[in-house]
Amino acid sequence: MRKQTKGAGAPAAAAAGLRPPVVVLVNPQLGENIGTAARAMANFGLTELRLVAPRDGWPNDKAVAAAAAAAPIVHAAQLFDSTREAVADLHYVAATTARPRDLVKPVLAPDSAAREMDARCREGQRCGLLFGPEKSGMDNDTIALADAIVTAPVDPVYPSLNLAQAVLLMGYEWRRQLKPAGLGRQTEFDGPAREGLRMQGTRPAKRDELVGFFDHLEAELDRSGFLYPPEKRPAMVRNLRSLFLRLGATEQDVRTLRGIVSSLAGDRRGRGGTS
Amino acid sequence: MRKQTKGAGAPAAAAAGLRPPVVVLVNPQLGENIGTAARAMANFGLTELRLVAPRDGWPNDKAVAAAAAAAPIVHAAQLFDSTREAVADLHYVAATTARPRDLVKPVLAPDSAAREMDARCREGQRCGLLFGPEKSGMDNDTIALADAIVTAPVDPVYPSLNLAQAVLLMGYEWRRQLKPAGLGRQTEFDGPAREGLRMQGTRPAKRDELVGFFDHLEAELDRSGFLYPPEKRPAMVRNLRSLFLRLGATEQDVRTLRGIVSSLAGDRRGRGGTS
Repeated sequence: MRKQTKGAGAPAAAAAGLRPPVVVLVNPQLGENIGTAARAMANFGLTELRLVAPRDGWPNDKAVAAAAAAAPIVHAAQLFDSTREAVADLHYVAATTARPRDLVKPVLAPDSAAREMDARCREGQRCGLLFGPEKSGMDNDTIALADAIVTAPVDPVYPSLNLAQAVLLMGYEWRRQLKPAGLGRQTEFDGPAREGLRMQGTRPAKRDELVGFFDHLEAELDRSGFLYPPEKRPAMVRNLRSLFLRLGATEQDVRTLRGIVSSLAGDRRGRGGTS
Repeated sequence: MRKQTKGAGAPAAAAAGLRPPVVVLVNPQLGENIGTAARAMANFGLTELRLVAPRDGWPNDKAVAAAAAAAPIVHAAQLFDSTREAVADLHYVAATTARPRDLVKPVLAPDSAAREMDARCREGQRCGLLFGPEKSGMDNDTIALADAIVTAPVDPVYPSLNLAQAVLLMGYEWRRQLKPAGLGRQTEFDGPAREGLRMQGTRPAKRDELVGFFDHLEAELDRSGFLYPPEKRPAMVRNLRSLFLRLGATEQDVRTLRGIVSSLAGDRRGRGGTS
């Protein structure tokens, strides 16, 4: 549920017809850190902030104070109950976190992630960057909602970046990739998924469409007994979601996949069940 | 005059025979900012800190406290009376500042400056990065000592970076430019699917395994009526195969997908059919 929608921001980029990636802070703890993250966003032209269940409530005076001249970004921030809702309308989501051990996700350097987002934004897609809570980092269920993981090449001896620094690096890379509007970025072949999109002439699935497919698939697999035993279900679900997220699915793909699941499972119910 | 020389630091880089650029803080004001700058250095493997006439004297307990685990960099910092002395032994010096109006200097983006320094360090040259005082910025006499100016591509509407952030961006670019020799550049990314494979520690599916999955899926979809009518079947099959080929599936993925199809469809046959 979107609780607050005081305008989506992005005046500068809107002028250029390009909406920069959304910054999504998942369970941020200190208001000060939300404010300094907003400042880092402003440094590099990121303007749209979304907050998932900030620990100390919202609005937060400390966030406004720490944001200083970037306070308009804080005031316009949108509040969500869950990450899933916060990314529902986005076409491509990258989670900034250390490399997880037990999830299959593409791991991108910040420049690669920024190039990917720049290309997608130019096609009218909406992109988002997820940042986890200050202390605990991002949990695997949140990471599972992302298309890719972004990891800065920090020294392994001293890897900790604070929230504002992580936002700063991504903002820096985003802005560094920006080409002068109008000159037309050189089209590159950058992977089977993106090429697939162009060939098919359809748009990428939005996150809520993908999550709808996941719900559908998982409900059928619960019925058929695939997601058994219960203690293994969470990890199995994460792995399945990661597998299908790697498709870079279009909305047509999602319809096709849902059709497959319905056909295989619905037919089952039709013959052997209630229907 | 060099006042303090408790070892030049740089253990990690020294082991690889490459000494990273020196960070020179010119007239830093708050001890806290010296400490957070040291932390930003540590994040990206910069280890040698020089201070020119810090406002609040030296040593500074607040700098040590703010540095946290990067305190060794602060303890090993060298103190100088003037910028001229602080850069005396360096071969190449870049000043991080906004573009000056009345000085003729090359102006580099952070990545270009990092490449230049990387190349020079490899030739055994010593390089340095100058950062000015927090409030007033760098004066022209200091800038005049530099070979080049480095300017981050900040949004002109909100250009202010704090000292630690400026250090962080330069450290990030330095580390990003590092070539494989010695210091271990982050593994180059070459596409979502392939990177995913590495993480999982499994091998890409062979073509016959993929085709085996296709046969399995299509047989079940024939039974369930999805691939109907017959005249559309060839195009539908091609599209399905394209969709799943875009996964860049591993052999584990193929097993998972076959498990899903078996579970959904096998259950159908078990309940409603011949089993």
